[in-house]
Amino acid sequence: MRYSVFAGGKRLRPILALAAAEAVGGERAPVLEPASGLELIHTYSLIHDDLPALDDDAIRRGAPSCHVAFGEAVAILAGDALLTHGLGALARYPEEEIYNALKVRALAAVVDAIGTAGMIGGQIADLEAESAGAAPDLALVRLIHENKTGRLIRASLAVGGILSFADEAHLQRLDAYGRAVGLAFQIKDDLLDVESDAGTLGKPAGKDAAAGKATFPAAVGVERSRAMLRESVAEAVAEARGLPGSGGRLPELAEFVARRIS
Amino acid sequence: MRYSVFAGGKRLRPILALAAAEAVGGERAPVLEPASGLELIHTYSLIHDDLPALDDDAIRRGAPSCHVAFGEAVAILAGDALLTHGLGALARYPEEEIYNALKVRALAAVVDAIGTAGMIGGQIADLEAESAGAAPDLALVRLIHENKTGRLIRASLAVGGILSFADEAHLQRLDAYGRAVGLAFQIKDDLLDVESDAGTLGKPAGKDAAAGKATFPAAVGVERSRAMLRESVAEAVAEARGLPGSGGRLPELAEFVARRIS
Repeated sequence: MRYSVFAGGKRLRPILALAAAEAVGGERAPVLEPASGLELIHTYSLIHDDLPALDDDAIRRGAPSCHVAFGEAVAILAGDALLTHGLGALARYPEEEIYNALKVRALAAVVDAIGTAGMIGGQIADLEAESAGAAPDLALVRLIHENKTGRLIRASLAVGGILSFADEAHLQRLDAYGRAVGLAFQIKDDLLDVESDAGTLGKPAGKDAAAGKATFPAAVGVERSRAMLRESVAEAVAEARGLPGSGGRLPELAEFVARRIS
Repeated sequence: MRYSVFAGGKRLRPILALAAAEAVGGERAPVLEPASGLELIHTYSLIHDDLPALDDDAIRRGAPSCHVAFGEAVAILAGDALLTHGLGALARYPEEEIYNALKVRALAAVVDAIGTAGMIGGQIADLEAESAGAAPDLALVRLIHENKTGRLIRASLAVGGILSFADEAHLQRLDAYGRAVGLAFQIKDDLLDVESDAGTLGKPAGKDAAAGKATFPAAVGVERSRAMLRESVAEAVAEARGLPGSGGRLPELAEFVARRIS
């Protein structure tokens, strides 16, 4: 668990949760542990996704994947425990009584985001698309990615907003921002797989194309993917600017997502 | 998920949660969905435990294990989703505002029970004991089983009690009952592996001994295990009788655990 959580990573989900809190006038402190829970949940998804029965990835965050370092049994259990304690952090923090209703709401949002109608549904759709072997079209690629990665990114913004007592209008704007940033994140991820190398990425490059994965470049080509990336970032920035204080750090985070090199 | 949840099973954990609710003067209705969540969590633990990298069990509840029926990838994700939605059911139900503080408390109890200091810790200790190959002693067997199966059984009683507004004295008594019933359950499980056959059990018999598993019969022999089983049931019954209405169905459930044939 420690090995995989502390192997690095961008910490995008907790950062988005904290930035969302600040953008709606909240404080960071009450969101710190729940935001950490989101990173534990993200790490669980990476560990299980890397397993031989799933994506069979031997390298993650520049180091051997969890199952390569510790064996499959420990990797399965480490992922299980990170999911358990990730949701546990959302149940337990912040500890003050006044947060109970908000914690229950935040937990439901995260469970929806990572369950069968979210992340796991996306992973199953991804598996099915791969085994069907059909050429990926844009609608399928969007469906897979909106669920597989987009939903937890959106939920991270929701957690920050909910635990900061945000009103419904602000929560909706955070969600629109999260939807656009999540799309941008995934398009960029797919582009990096095409355009980068393993040393920079911290994981093998070119693997998606080799595996016939449903990616944006495979569905619409590199140029159209780059245009979609620019549009998604612009949309995210516009949504964020509609929040108090012009969205605080949220606009620059959207631009970071498109600029990042790993 | 449906395949494994509806393959049968005793439903012991939800039944204990409902019986605990009744034993402290609560009602069944508010506990139904959280109790179902406990069964989803239990089923997740079975699916992952049966995987080739862990216990490598091909038969469960009289039918092919999840990974045999659907492949390892789907089995891993099905387990992940059952854990997710199991905890989700505890976060979401009962829906009334008045339960928010209780739900947060019940969730924390379940997370503790199934996390690294509970079920997953027990599974890791079990893996390590197997790979060390040392002769199991009673302290190690108890440690493994108290965590691997005992903690979720105790948490099931806690969930029923907490969501029924039980006072601390009653919660402590439910916990003492759960500790004794959990021990009885596991001793009986180990004895069935020695004494029964696959047709009756719905899973292979004699597998623990063949694998050099840390079991009560391996540690202290069959006769002493039977005596410990009787003592644990007697202790559970005594604890239950101290609850209002003599513990309702709890005493007979303790006796069922020792009498069961699968």
